[in-house]
Amino acid sequence: MAKIVVDVMLKPEILDPQGKAVAAALPRLGFNFAKDVRQGKRFEIEVDGDPTPAQLADVEKAAEKLLSNPVIENFTVRVEK
Amino acid sequence: MAKIVVDVMLKPEILDPQGKAVAAALPRLGFNFAKDVRQGKRFEIEVDGDPTPAQLADVEKAAEKLLSNPVIENFTVRVEK
Repeated sequence: MAKIVVDVMLKPEILDPQGKAVAAALPRLGFNFAKDVRQGKRFEIEVDGDPTPAQLADVEKAAEKLLSNPVIENFTVRVEK
Repeated sequence: MAKIVVDVMLKPEILDPQGKAVAAALPRLGFNFAKDVRQGKRFEIEVDGDPTPAQLADVEKAAEKLLSNPVIENFTVRVEK
């Protein structure tokens, strides 16, 4: 059983209001380490056995069609043991 | 400039309706690779230079206080180049 992780983030040129809200809240809690914060989605997909190249290609297609909005978001796909 | 990534996922024992919705939608789009899908949040925090241990400790505290709900969520902190 392996885990395929799809990370979906807004494209850099797109304003991220959630990230801005977090970045503004951090100093109020006494945390001053952040120059910027961006928030996105993380999907953990469980598959049987080690993922095959065909499965990974399918995950890419599913990420494009369902898990992200390619107009405003980028995604990455990786396998986590 | 380095990027600290905080991944926040629901604890395994907590029902994940969003993940269930994605898992149910995938076969309707012709994708049958997924045994289970869980959805969470990904935060990318930009800091100046390489993060110091003190900064990483602060990120852990911020993740506990602001970025996650420790009652129902787990989080991980890592540095991405």
